[in-house]
Amino acid sequence: MGFWKSLFSASDTTTTAKPAQAEGYSTPGLTTISGSRIFFSTDREIDLYELEELCDAVGWSRRPLRKVKKAIQHSFLVVSMWEQRGAQRRLIGFSRATSDHAFNATIWDVVVHPEFQGKGLGKALMKQVIKKLRSEDISNITLFADPHVVDFYRNLGFMPDPEGIKGMFWYPD
Amino acid sequence: MGFWKSLFSASDTTTTAKPAQAEGYSTPGLTTISGSRIFFSTDREIDLYELEELCDAVGWSRRPLRKVKKAIQHSFLVVSMWEQRGAQRRLIGFSRATSDHAFNATIWDVVVHPEFQGKGLGKALMKQVIKKLRSEDISNITLFADPHVVDFYRNLGFMPDPEGIKGMFWYPD
Repeated sequence: MGFWKSLFSASDTTTTAKPAQAEGYSTPGLTTISGSRIFFSTDREIDLYELEELCDAVGWSRRPLRKVKKAIQHSFLVVSMWEQRGAQRRLIGFSRATSDHAFNATIWDVVVHPEFQGKGLGKALMKQVIKKLRSEDISNITLFADPHVVDFYRNLGFMPDPEGIKGMFWYPD
Repeated sequence: MGFWKSLFSASDTTTTAKPAQAEGYSTPGLTTISGSRIFFSTDREIDLYELEELCDAVGWSRRPLRKVKKAIQHSFLVVSMWEQRGAQRRLIGFSRATSDHAFNATIWDVVVHPEFQGKGLGKALMKQVIKKLRSEDISNITLFADPHVVDFYRNLGFMPDPEGIKGMFWYPD
């Protein structure tokens, strides 16, 4: 996993002081509700049950954990978002991207816990993802957006159907 | 590369007789111009100069071969299409897909040499790609189509903007 180490070390200088958070990093100025702190991580050792709980909270259909684990392992980038209160940590956001490690990346599974929505945290999470992908020299960052989040992504610099390019999904006959 | 071996061996029984084509396979009924035979391969040991020549032929901008090599290495699937005339082989088509190996795949760089277009070979190439991805239990096969090829992909079962889902590309500020 040398790649991830280098991605991480090249990314952010605001690492936390606690050794247990070696792969976590906070973003300056990003503090919510009093007494809590938000931080991001590219560590893919995520408790799958905790992730499932997060996805349940936004109403996503459940997926086999075995496949979720495989998808995380084979994603190019995983960024998770955590709330820390004292010694307690809670997974409050998640996103991952597939990539050819050279030209293209596609972002999937962007989720922010409903209790933490409307605070700019989804935007902060996506900015982390974009920053990481750009630091790896990925020039084409893509995603497929549900209608109700098109404007959210537009505000982050994503353009729908640029030059008439259409996102298409295959359906079995 | 055990994965590729298993993908290949699970895929097609119409392998060619020549040992040198261990990873090539022909498609029944797919023969063009007299004396030539078309076959497909998932082998990613492709001559990068030959691939560049193919991409030049359709007018694509040149890309650093180092990055093309990396992209091929980190693609989930590579399908190339070849014309064989006697002992001579010529690369006439190419496609690749990124994936999380579990849920999603995205198809990139679909190209058919202009001399071989209009013969159903692009369709045959895409059918190979879809078949391989399906055989790996990938449920969500996606792509981004330029406006002039939207109908080509639609005829293959791809739907643009299903349920309003928008393909989006990030542009730097």
